[in-house]
Amino acid sequence: MQTLEKTHPKFSELKHRLTEIDDINAAASLLYWDQATYMPPQGLAARGRQLATLRQLAHEKLTDGAIAQLLDDLDTYAHDLPYDSDERSLLRLSRHLYEQAARVPASFTARLSRHRTECYQAWAQARPENDFALVQPYLEEMLELSQEWASFFPYDHIADPLIDLSDYGMKTEEIRRIFAELRQQLVPLVQAIATQPPLDDRCLHQVYPEAEQIAFGLSLIQQIGYDLSRGRQDKTLHPFMTNFSINDVRITTRVYETDLSQGLFSTIHEMGHALYELGNDPAFEGTPLAGGISSGVHESQSRLWENLVGRSRPFWQHFYPKLQQAFPTQLGTVPMESFYRAINKVAKSLIRTDADEVTYNLHVMIRFDLEVAMLEGKLAIKDLPEAWNERYRSDLGIVPDSDRNGVLQDVHWYSGRIGGMFQGYTLGNLMSAQFFEAAIAAHPGIPTQIATGQFETLHQWLRTNIYQHGRKYTAAELLLRVTGQSLNPAPLMAYLSRKYGDLYAL
Amino acid sequence: MQTLEKTHPKFSELKHRLTEIDDINAAASLLYWDQATYMPPQGLAARGRQLATLRQLAHEKLTDGAIAQLLDDLDTYAHDLPYDSDERSLLRLSRHLYEQAARVPASFTARLSRHRTECYQAWAQARPENDFALVQPYLEEMLELSQEWASFFPYDHIADPLIDLSDYGMKTEEIRRIFAELRQQLVPLVQAIATQPPLDDRCLHQVYPEAEQIAFGLSLIQQIGYDLSRGRQDKTLHPFMTNFSINDVRITTRVYETDLSQGLFSTIHEMGHALYELGNDPAFEGTPLAGGISSGVHESQSRLWENLVGRSRPFWQHFYPKLQQAFPTQLGTVPMESFYRAINKVAKSLIRTDADEVTYNLHVMIRFDLEVAMLEGKLAIKDLPEAWNERYRSDLGIVPDSDRNGVLQDVHWYSGRIGGMFQGYTLGNLMSAQFFEAAIAAHPGIPTQIATGQFETLHQWLRTNIYQHGRKYTAAELLLRVTGQSLNPAPLMAYLSRKYGDLYAL
Repeated sequence: MQTLEKTHPKFSELKHRLTEIDDINAAASLLYWDQATYMPPQGLAARGRQLATLRQLAHEKLTDGAIAQLLDDLDTYAHDLPYDSDERSLLRLSRHLYEQAARVPASFTARLSRHRTECYQAWAQARPENDFALVQPYLEEMLELSQEWASFFPYDHIADPLIDLSDYGMKTEEIRRIFAELRQQLVPLVQAIATQPPLDDRCLHQVYPEAEQIAFGLSLIQQIGYDLSRGRQDKTLHPFMTNFSINDVRITTRVYETDLSQGLFSTIHEMGHALYELGNDPAFEGTPLAGGISSGVHESQSRLWENLVGRSRPFWQHFYPKLQQAFPTQLGTVPMESFYRAINKVAKSLIRTDADEVTYNLHVMIRFDLEVAMLEGKLAIKDLPEAWNERYRSDLGIVPDSDRNGVLQDVHWYSGRIGGMFQGYTLGNLMSAQFFEAAIAAHPGIPTQIATGQFETLHQWLRTNIYQHGRKYTAAELLLRVTGQSLNPAPLMAYLSRKYGDLYAL
Repeated sequence: MQTLEKTHPKFSELKHRLTEIDDINAAASLLYWDQATYMPPQGLAARGRQLATLRQLAHEKLTDGAIAQLLDDLDTYAHDLPYDSDERSLLRLSRHLYEQAARVPASFTARLSRHRTECYQAWAQARPENDFALVQPYLEEMLELSQEWASFFPYDHIADPLIDLSDYGMKTEEIRRIFAELRQQLVPLVQAIATQPPLDDRCLHQVYPEAEQIAFGLSLIQQIGYDLSRGRQDKTLHPFMTNFSINDVRITTRVYETDLSQGLFSTIHEMGHALYELGNDPAFEGTPLAGGISSGVHESQSRLWENLVGRSRPFWQHFYPKLQQAFPTQLGTVPMESFYRAINKVAKSLIRTDADEVTYNLHVMIRFDLEVAMLEGKLAIKDLPEAWNERYRSDLGIVPDSDRNGVLQDVHWYSGRIGGMFQGYTLGNLMSAQFFEAAIAAHPGIPTQIATGQFETLHQWLRTNIYQHGRKYTAAELLLRVTGQSLNPAPLMAYLSRKYGDLYAL
């Protein structure tokens, strides 16, 4: 970003302010990371206060009139720059972030923030007690707040501004259209699989000691390309990725001693998120251009590594002998093919986060449809548990035994908002297949390389085509640039049909 | 802090602003803690920037005109409150902190901050290369900056404002007087010890594996009263204590496998710092009243636990059998008395941080005198190495073999400032003896309790008399309240003479 900085001091001033905000956000992220990893339990009360202060401060700095003025002053300069130049991209993104923040009154933000804490606490009590009624009034207020939030923006559909917060540029109607198309092809596949004998995954449910699982996962992701001089892995209750700079992108993991796949695939998943942000153009450091574009594109990278690579036969041709070495008593006599089938077992299940890659998107679509209906006023919160169960019956053919395993299972609505919280998971799955197809088209040798433990061609292709751009393009722009296509369920369906047709002899 | 908050909204407003600053400072402390413990190496560049941003932000918020206005507006209210009420103490301390920050121009702070980084980097290169000339111009500028810093304040002696930054209220002349008195009694003791056969500390220099050392240290400090639900211990290059709230006060440690005493006593030392801040009145949370008053009082607490308790015979009557159990091959046949003598060996040495409790204060006084002479313009930086070596010859009877083990050994001048950087160590030693004497006077059974592993009487006395007050009183006020005395070398000298008279049969 040299040119403009030399010619326009206001651009430098803007960048300086944006970096200050980025620094505050990085400190807030560290406060959260520490809370999840190492903080002594009694530090919690002060930590909540500190996080709120820093987030409020970042919000104040972003919505400062000086930022608006600088953006206005730089408007005519921006127009003379190529659309995809770093400078113009930064101005475009900053304008978007400024407006997304500035349209929302500070008093609303404070109200929402307080309610999120209260609603989360009610949920944290209601879920183990299986008591939806306890959290119902809080969720009703969360719905009202979400509707109010949307009202600060112009929209075609009330869910659009909320979807925009996670997947900028996506519209409710477009998602509905794509999801309908996907569903039409997915349901018959799930039904066909259901008629076949189930795969045997008992080999995954022996006892796998925690320390060995963590050591194996860490060596695996290092071989793929996760660099411990620029990241680290720690244990948390729920795995996540976070970054404090382009050169410090950390992941966390959790391990179940009687379920090998949980820790293994969540580690690869979070590594995928991390590789994305580690691959950002270093020139984006400290600016909003660093990071990932949208929840959909971010998820496309985690799922690409977790599923299209990590649950593939070539991947385990390389890693399975090493896994057997790490767990000789558990896997020494289990053939690779049995392990491959075990990690790809499809089952109609109640819990989204445990779902296989075929049924996963059905879980997501249920949630997306329900949140849209709530926002539209067509579904009252009091009727939500029944609506949830009804959709599980119709879409997956099973009914939750309890709200704990039904409507209370995900934290998203109870701690964030209603609207725009789930579509990214399926958008990510769709894009992961589109991106992977493009990578293979460019480098047909990738699967063969993976089978010999070489990941650099794929990693480099992803860096060049996706990672380095950070938040420069919208998801739709990036997808079109990289694949020549718009969002399209065909590659995912082709991949799933081929892979599971083989596995289930369809 | 109920009364005034209810009657004066401006007090609430001030407290709110101070807590916001405290939150920013806590985040900055966490950025630093993470850098020293878990940060991947390549995160360093961004981390430096983030720390600078947060510290700048805290400074801006503190020197905001609104704080000054609130303090002015609350002045008359403050005068109606008892001097030692929480409210009036907070106003008094805030006024002091505000003025300490506001008198210094922002441009100077930025200049100093940049120079500190540069000077530190030059030192980090110069020290291993034993090349004082390399860092000399940087240290010359550090001296000029330190003198300029002092010039923003009214003073009797140019070192006073710089001493004030660490030990509020102490004056150069008073320190000189006390140090002279201490020195007069200390030198003959050191000389008398030097005529005796040296104590044998070889038992400490066997191989003590790191993990076992850390486990033992952790169990020891937990038994004394360090609560891991409100703190934790991690490994760093240089041990330190830091806090992110009254309920999250952490320590770090380092361990040498061939020197048992380093890790052991630095763990107890940092625990002493931590107990102080953990014992603050919970009502002080998020306000400047939380923390420790001064570097001297803070050091008095770490040294009290490290030396007066941790190097005493009763302490090891309880802990030595446990230490023998932890290291049976190393210590199984070493009698407790031999161990006690080993950990109290006195030797004329070159390195302050390795010095025993008798000679330690001589190291400190050399540094104090030299920094005062530099500030006064009586000692040029170019002559500093020779002046340093000359003082070691005259005071300790040994001459550094190199500047690395001489004038380049401490980071303080090269990364902080010249002036006020060292006196706190000796003030702390003096006060540790004064406080301990007062505790024993109140509870003569303390040594007997320590010999049976009971620390609660002493801990509770320290909480009630020192810890809970946080930064409410100045060091001088606190000392007078607790001991009825002002600063006085007699208790330390009485303790040292008694203990080392016995050890060295003087």
